Amino acid sequence: MKRIKIKQLFAEAKEQDVVICAWVRTNRAQAQFGFLNVNDGSTLNNLQVVYDSALKNFEAISKFRVGVSVLIKGKVVLTPEMKQPLEVHASEVEMLGDCPEDYPIQPKRHTREFLREMAHLRPRTNLFNAVFRIRSVAAMAIHAYFQERGYVYVHTPLITCADCEGSDQMFKITTLNMQNPPLNEDKTVDFSKDLFGKQSFITGSGQLHGETYAMAFGDIYTFGPTFRSENSNTQTHANEFWMIEPEMAFCDLEGLMDIEEEMLKYVIKYVMDNCPSEIDFCDQFVEKGLKDKLSNILSSSFTRISHHDIVDLLLKSDRKWEFKPSYEDDIAKEHEKFITEHFNGPVFITNWPKDIKAWYMKLNPDGKTVAAVDLVVPQAGELMGGSQREENLDVLLERMEQLGVEKDGVDWYLDTRRFGGCVHSGFGMGFERLIMYLTGVENIRDVIPFPRTPKNCKY
Amino acid sequence: MKRIKIKQLFAEAKEQDVVICAWVRTNRAQAQFGFLNVNDGSTLNNLQVVYDSALKNFEAISKFRVGVSVLIKGKVVLTPEMKQPLEVHASEVEMLGDCPEDYPIQPKRHTREFLREMAHLRPRTNLFNAVFRIRSVAAMAIHAYFQERGYVYVHTPLITCADCEGSDQMFKITTLNMQNPPLNEDKTVDFSKDLFGKQSFITGSGQLHGETYAMAFGDIYTFGPTFRSENSNTQTHANEFWMIEPEMAFCDLEGLMDIEEEMLKYVIKYVMDNCPSEIDFCDQFVEKGLKDKLSNILSSSFTRISHHDIVDLLLKSDRKWEFKPSYEDDIAKEHEKFITEHFNGPVFITNWPKDIKAWYMKLNPDGKTVAAVDLVVPQAGELMGGSQREENLDVLLERMEQLGVEKDGVDWYLDTRRFGGCVHSGFGMGFERLIMYLTGVENIRDVIPFPRTPKNCKY
Repeated sequence: MKRIKIKQLFAEAKEQDVVICAWVRTNRAQAQFGFLNVNDGSTLNNLQVVYDSALKNFEAISKFRVGVSVLIKGKVVLTPEMKQPLEVHASEVEMLGDCPEDYPIQPKRHTREFLREMAHLRPRTNLFNAVFRIRSVAAMAIHAYFQERGYVYVHTPLITCADCEGSDQMFKITTLNMQNPPLNEDKTVDFSKDLFGKQSFITGSGQLHGETYAMAFGDIYTFGPTFRSENSNTQTHANEFWMIEPEMAFCDLEGLMDIEEEMLKYVIKYVMDNCPSEIDFCDQFVEKGLKDKLSNILSSSFTRISHHDIVDLLLKSDRKWEFKPSYEDDIAKEHEKFITEHFNGPVFITNWPKDIKAWYMKLNPDGKTVAAVDLVVPQAGELMGGSQREENLDVLLERMEQLGVEKDGVDWYLDTRRFGGCVHSGFGMGFERLIMYLTGVENIRDVIPFPRTPKNCKY
Repeated sequence: MKRIKIKQLFAEAKEQDVVICAWVRTNRAQAQFGFLNVNDGSTLNNLQVVYDSALKNFEAISKFRVGVSVLIKGKVVLTPEMKQPLEVHASEVEMLGDCPEDYPIQPKRHTREFLREMAHLRPRTNLFNAVFRIRSVAAMAIHAYFQERGYVYVHTPLITCADCEGSDQMFKITTLNMQNPPLNEDKTVDFSKDLFGKQSFITGSGQLHGETYAMAFGDIYTFGPTFRSENSNTQTHANEFWMIEPEMAFCDLEGLMDIEEEMLKYVIKYVMDNCPSEIDFCDQFVEKGLKDKLSNILSSSFTRISHHDIVDLLLKSDRKWEFKPSYEDDIAKEHEKFITEHFNGPVFITNWPKDIKAWYMKLNPDGKTVAAVDLVVPQAGELMGGSQREENLDVLLERMEQLGVEKDGVDWYLDTRRFGGCVHSGFGMGFERLIMYLTGVENIRDVIPFPRTPKNCKY
């Protein structure tokens, strides 16, 4: 008899002899028989195992505690009249690994704050089992979407000496002795002695590198970790997180929005198709109405409207704003909320004032705005940010000079504009932001397996 | 007319009107007509475009240089009698972005050393186009293999304060001013002022974190970047590389080998099915016989033999060894070569002397060896390394003490042995090692988009 996983056992739903390896979630023992609820991690659903006093170690089994790992041999019995479609009648139950009474993950509700302090155990709870399976399946959905369309997945470097986000937000890395670093004559640290021969960092974005690959493969995407060293303690900031950064040659702002919309719908559908129990669980226990929210996205057409027209709309509304809407400024959270409610769905906000956006974004003919686009979605706010890139070298150089961006470190990047440059566009999506959106979980610490935030680097 | 990609155009292989955006690879102009070979990155194969003097900008087109980006409108004409199955007769050819005469990527053979100095341009060559597309497709193959089997993809943290590989091989990261770091009273650096409140690193492995998730989900895998700060300049070392680290609960050494073998065959088949032109290219220009090598793996059954029996075999052979085989020592490169030739295929070497293996590996009943396994393959040598893990807490603690592994930082990890522990196993595979094996490329610098090696952190 070969071991079968519980997910498959439910899928086959037939009478058969099986071997199960799993962990005990609950154990209800009575005088002559008992019920183990076990879970092997293959599915959110527990399997009910019935054992009785005919088993030679019945007494021992009836004392198995929550958390114990077990091997079960038995027969599947279909129970169409019961809540669960089947159960296993055990002919053998063996303890593989014991679990003490003070095991913290007991079958009761634990607060998320409590579980955050045991990040290595929390995936054993239903909530985190659901969240991290959705995270895994959503990652696959992203790969599937891009690979089916011929995009090349590029592993851009994490260690870098140049970065478009500015080095003040980056972690420094070093192999030098920080206690007694080698010094130059002027007493500054002599980074020529460091492993890379100069000061290096871990990156906040793979975009610039990605663009160089888009100029070779046409369509590429990155999917990897990024880092920000900012000391901020909010529900949406972590110092380490994963980003997806696609970049498409011969693609303008309209084409970019087509891709963002199609990709988001694809990922939502993929996750709903492949994680029905997990989405149901989140719908029931995390965000009431989650399923409706996601289904509505699938059938909605995303609004496309300029930043200028959004500000018009905000000013014309009779709301009292904490932050006054302005044609020159960013859109505040309260505005985003109003906008997605007004349009009853996701909204692409395009053509932003150039002074609040990045140097590599395409300058529009008006000379005042850039061809940038943010996607804001109901509840989560900004989910993706992208732009058409400035493909004109002279304009780009002027923008860099205006904004004080150093040319020296990114001369290689400028080659994309020197050698057969073309209209191209890309966007970035924070993966955790997506998972929060897909699960309804409100704190980024609860969608990253081992989150890194200021003063928090346990494990 | 919608833009079509060249890959799809070849796949459809029918007469139709098309719009193509691409880059010029060659331009052969004659008096009344000319031929552009263009590539849009969707496939290794170039498209031949015929243009003639009926076009109003014929003169200009005939001067388009290599590297120029173009928009082409025209009609597909099937050419079954020619080398290429079809060509496009242009009704319009427009330059999108110019390219100067000194463009370094000319249609001639460049050395890999030369191209390494322009990592941002080399994917525009056939070799690197093939290699990095194979890299992308192989990454997808790995995700597909594990996800189809219900494994959960876990993003283990990159920033860490604990590591099983030992911190001497890790990069330190900091937000402190390295010039004037805050000091403790004893003049040591005061890391309590650093962002995480203690000294932190970027990781060399996600295994320990992965194990905690295997104890929740059963089967998990990681796939992410890892770092080693070693100052070594060889063909196979980089300071930043990608690793895959699967971990399976209720899985012993034999089960582990089954998975490694099945996964490798799956990935090879997936890449051969999805990158036929790229594999052909590598077979022709990189490693003669590559295709046969890969096909042979698919049909071979991997040998499984103990380290002890391997040493027997080596000692009994009549070879003169530079490194004398020993029951207590590692297997040298020359031994690996002999072994894979002897068995004419991949070989699992099991049950290694405990003193040369890691502290978390399962101690065998003999007390001398551990249930570790290395997979060595023809030419590439070691491709994967794994083991059954020591699930017995007391034995594990004793091993840690013997090997001087600090318990304090990994107490959370030890919980996997306290709370429902079980037999479990896992392995690590360097992704670059796999790509070198799949392409025949011999230098790791040529299979990473922007490689990081000592003194090399350009881009």
